[in-house]
Amino acid sequence: MRYSSSTGPLDHLIKQLSSLPGLGNRSARRIALHLLQKRDTSMRPLANALEQAADQIQECNTCGNLDMCNPCKICTNEQRDRSKLCVVASVSDVWAIERTGAYKGTYHVLGGVLSALDGIGVDDLRLHSLEKRLKNNLNIKELILALSATVDGQSTAHYVSDRALNVNENLEVTKLSHGVPVGGELDYLDEGTITTAMKSRRSA
Amino acid sequence: MRYSSSTGPLDHLIKQLSSLPGLGNRSARRIALHLLQKRDTSMRPLANALEQAADQIQECNTCGNLDMCNPCKICTNEQRDRSKLCVVASVSDVWAIERTGAYKGTYHVLGGVLSALDGIGVDDLRLHSLEKRLKNNLNIKELILALSATVDGQSTAHYVSDRALNVNENLEVTKLSHGVPVGGELDYLDEGTITTAMKSRRSA
Repeated sequence: MRYSSSTGPLDHLIKQLSSLPGLGNRSARRIALHLLQKRDTSMRPLANALEQAADQIQECNTCGNLDMCNPCKICTNEQRDRSKLCVVASVSDVWAIERTGAYKGTYHVLGGVLSALDGIGVDDLRLHSLEKRLKNNLNIKELILALSATVDGQSTAHYVSDRALNVNENLEVTKLSHGVPVGGELDYLDEGTITTAMKSRRSA
Repeated sequence: MRYSSSTGPLDHLIKQLSSLPGLGNRSARRIALHLLQKRDTSMRPLANALEQAADQIQECNTCGNLDMCNPCKICTNEQRDRSKLCVVASVSDVWAIERTGAYKGTYHVLGGVLSALDGIGVDDLRLHSLEKRLKNNLNIKELILALSATVDGQSTAHYVSDRALNVNENLEVTKLSHGVPVGGELDYLDEGTITTAMKSRRSA
């Protein structure tokens, strides 16, 4: 008989924690112990933060982003350039692009990429609402496909591009440039990246 | 202006998560996103598990273990061998030993090891209550020092041993054996471990 199985709530907590992405049994135990030792400064605040976020954060019906309001702050922000629509796979990609501060247009979160292996098909992605957006907003001039440079990401990009051009053939469809990551050492880069960077070289 | 700073509860949740041991900003964002996508199956259950554990789990006044009752189930279990007391640094060590099922005695959780570097002194550890236990329970025959094989762990073991023998000079003080970990390859072991294993070799 294992000791841990006899303490109901602790065991339950460790199980819940270990089901989170990137956490195993050992890290879940470590976190549970840390939390129990800081009950009032860490454990209860975390429980409250979870409840609060679960209550208040919602999915934007327009773009699929997560925010306290629906439509989200990006969709309703009059300062943002509505002629640009950036298609991303996940909300975390919106966060990543927003952290750069380099983009002032709007977003559309697909909710994943097409993947035969993971069984993600056309109907699992937010594609109908993308077409509807493009149909109803003919002032969208540029569709930026900011999808991962993986096989799945790029085939999704092709597919989205095809469907978008079907809706509005005057749409300018662009994608992120490939090349050497800023701060990246050539020596550590794969051949594909170096080849791409070499082919798309620009005058210095 | 960063987008993430504009969404109160989400930002707050990510901050809370990233303060947990082993989690950085990136993994905290990943977990927050995972939770928001599984609100009812993962997020609220986790919040409940945290509240429940915070309410119900308490520190055992006798040994320092965490359990739903005080004294804990190990201290009150009549089946356990009360002539053996195993001194460990942390509750996670109790769990680790209990998972083996190889020990049926009782425990005493010090709450850390002496460390000049981390500023952990004699008064920060559960040493007075250990002395009290030894004084009041003269049927404790063996004190097993299951502390880490680090400099701090071993100096703590020496110190605890001295204090325990002051209380009861007939106490048998033992410690865990050192040697090659089961499943460990010699090639990957440090010289100290191999030297120890060689010195304390036994007939096969």
